[in-house]
Amino acid sequence: MEYNKNFYQIHSNGDIFQRIQSERGTIGYYDLPYQDTSDIKAYAKTIVQKHIVVIGIGGSSLGVKAIYEFLLPSNKYQKDLVFLETLDPLEINHCLTKFDIFDAHFVVISKSGNTIETISLFKYLRTLVEINSDNCTVISKAKSGLTKFAQDRDIKVFELAENVGGRFSVFSVVGLVPLAMVGVDVDNLLNGCKRVSASFFDQSSYYAPIIRKARFLVENKARFNINVIFSYSSSLEGFNKWYVQLWAESLGKININKTRQALTPIALIGPVDQHSFLQLIIDGVRDKIVTFIKIADLKDNTIIPKSNDKNLGLEYAEGLSFNDLLNKQADATIESVEAQGDIPCDVITISTVDEYNIAKLMFSYQLLVSAIGEFLQINTYNQPGVEKGKAILKESLQN
Amino acid sequence: MEYNKNFYQIHSNGDIFQRIQSERGTIGYYDLPYQDTSDIKAYAKTIVQKHIVVIGIGGSSLGVKAIYEFLLPSNKYQKDLVFLETLDPLEINHCLTKFDIFDAHFVVISKSGNTIETISLFKYLRTLVEINSDNCTVISKAKSGLTKFAQDRDIKVFELAENVGGRFSVFSVVGLVPLAMVGVDVDNLLNGCKRVSASFFDQSSYYAPIIRKARFLVENKARFNINVIFSYSSSLEGFNKWYVQLWAESLGKININKTRQALTPIALIGPVDQHSFLQLIIDGVRDKIVTFIKIADLKDNTIIPKSNDKNLGLEYAEGLSFNDLLNKQADATIESVEAQGDIPCDVITISTVDEYNIAKLMFSYQLLVSAIGEFLQINTYNQPGVEKGKAILKESLQN
Repeated sequence: MEYNKNFYQIHSNGDIFQRIQSERGTIGYYDLPYQDTSDIKAYAKTIVQKHIVVIGIGGSSLGVKAIYEFLLPSNKYQKDLVFLETLDPLEINHCLTKFDIFDAHFVVISKSGNTIETISLFKYLRTLVEINSDNCTVISKAKSGLTKFAQDRDIKVFELAENVGGRFSVFSVVGLVPLAMVGVDVDNLLNGCKRVSASFFDQSSYYAPIIRKARFLVENKARFNINVIFSYSSSLEGFNKWYVQLWAESLGKININKTRQALTPIALIGPVDQHSFLQLIIDGVRDKIVTFIKIADLKDNTIIPKSNDKNLGLEYAEGLSFNDLLNKQADATIESVEAQGDIPCDVITISTVDEYNIAKLMFSYQLLVSAIGEFLQINTYNQPGVEKGKAILKESLQN
Repeated sequence: MEYNKNFYQIHSNGDIFQRIQSERGTIGYYDLPYQDTSDIKAYAKTIVQKHIVVIGIGGSSLGVKAIYEFLLPSNKYQKDLVFLETLDPLEINHCLTKFDIFDAHFVVISKSGNTIETISLFKYLRTLVEINSDNCTVISKAKSGLTKFAQDRDIKVFELAENVGGRFSVFSVVGLVPLAMVGVDVDNLLNGCKRVSASFFDQSSYYAPIIRKARFLVENKARFNINVIFSYSSSLEGFNKWYVQLWAESLGKININKTRQALTPIALIGPVDQHSFLQLIIDGVRDKIVTFIKIADLKDNTIIPKSNDKNLGLEYAEGLSFNDLLNKQADATIESVEAQGDIPCDVITISTVDEYNIAKLMFSYQLLVSAIGEFLQINTYNQPGVEKGKAILKESLQN
């Protein structure tokens, strides 16, 4: 019996590595770590306004937000970053009360240039404040309507390469431009990416950890179809949402054998979600693989003080730093999940809160998704399923 | 052959209704709509500080936050509501910079009185500001250590009844006290609950929609184990998180037949998550049931203006209100999901943004969860799976 070459099978790890290497020319994100950032940095320095307002949705905002929120509690940003993405008019107008639109610089991000949410918000904004080359920057593909609009007005355009998809664009101009404007060290971001890229692509062995993990997830997808990340710091909430998009939109696909594929992402924050989703992980059906993410050193030693009142109890936590308590909670949860014996789980530890480390985490996740996509024999980089809704909307609005 | 009486079987709808009616005395939340709120309202009026700070985690904060965030964009609250729940020291200290702790009233919420996150945060706070009967309110069960701490200092205590669990406590003092302090009409909240309660309990027919929906979800749980809600307004993000806790912690259980049960909740926001999770719903494995939530009338007619530049395109959306565009996006997504033919979905439409309507939605969801729990033959109201992690933590801290 001879199998049809399209018949679904799990390729060897070496095969997967070769495929990723060979798509490196056509898929743009792999080489973003090696871009020249001098134009971005020089331009960012010229921005005088206090508030940087990103107008973008999905891949045009989730990655920027993930990095911004991760660094926010520890960093002394020079400027605010504000995100306008909702279509809810109450939220729009509420958001607009939170900053001075006359002391704001608007970064309009839409790869296609015709994202209905982004463009509609932008049109509305233009009725409130004059938009010109002094208070606006556009990020879009070459020759989009939005790019033309900007060029007609000498508004600075950063072009997004055709072969960098929205959910893989965080380390392109989409992420770097607004982040540089608020004072993020974008070179250190790219250093983190380079570190991961080098260890992935320069390996002599094909059994790299990322490919091995992808293989594990794919081999067990029928039984464990839900991939939970449990991040122990609320500053990873933006990362969590970015992960959900990356995972769901890349991996929810029909493969070359016309079979529906799905690894379903769920993203939790610890310890808050110990009081929510954890019960389901422990006692529920065994369909979840859990990845814990910890931050080893938050570089803050706020201590839980001794209390002068025995009624408050919990003396055994006194004298600990909050950092330690947070990580001990993570460890206790990990141990309780492992003690079940039949819930696959792993732990990623980030050393500290800086550009380098969040970039390492995010670039690794992009590579992991690419590897899973190769194993599943899907197109990781398109999103055909959402086009029908857009067509229905357009038709309903045109009638 | 005679079945063991514990053998799992799906009971009749009438049976389920009887069981819920008979647990009405022992499970406290069913009768919260009928409580007397005069003490809460009178006390709330005496609070002079500008910022109300809730110190609580899980069921002690998710419900309050859901209602507060839902009403926030449209309401002119008299005061801010701030939530302190994270253990991340960077986040704690960042959060403390956002309001004046000397013009703040602290509402400390812990049913047991010994929630480690809440009490540790509270101890830390006491080193920064003197806590006394003028700037603090406690919500806890009678005779907890926290209650005693408060009573020793004449700090006002609102007692939470033993038979109201955290995730079913939003309409108890846990939710009503802080919400009344910022100016929410708590009676209108309870009116919404009463409306739902009356139509559920006063029915002459057992085939009430809530029980029918519960039955559908349970009958199809083996095939469709993931329950997605897709809320079309970013003001429902807090509701979404509350839903995840209610669903996961109530329904992730081992049932009387020792079988693991799980309905896995996923909560999305439209249109943002059309650019994220939607692809997975459309092209992924058919294991998801989707409930869309729409708000019919946001009582805001901000219009998408005509643009003077053809390059921006999308003329067909011009002249629409954002409210209309939001709902047309919901409708287009619903149509595209229904067009697949094999994804079960339903639509809940809230008429507008007010206390009455959010309470109706939340109380309905509590009843739905109670009904599902009866069908699954689980204890909906406990959370045994999270106790092991707590014990491990305590042991590791005591050594």
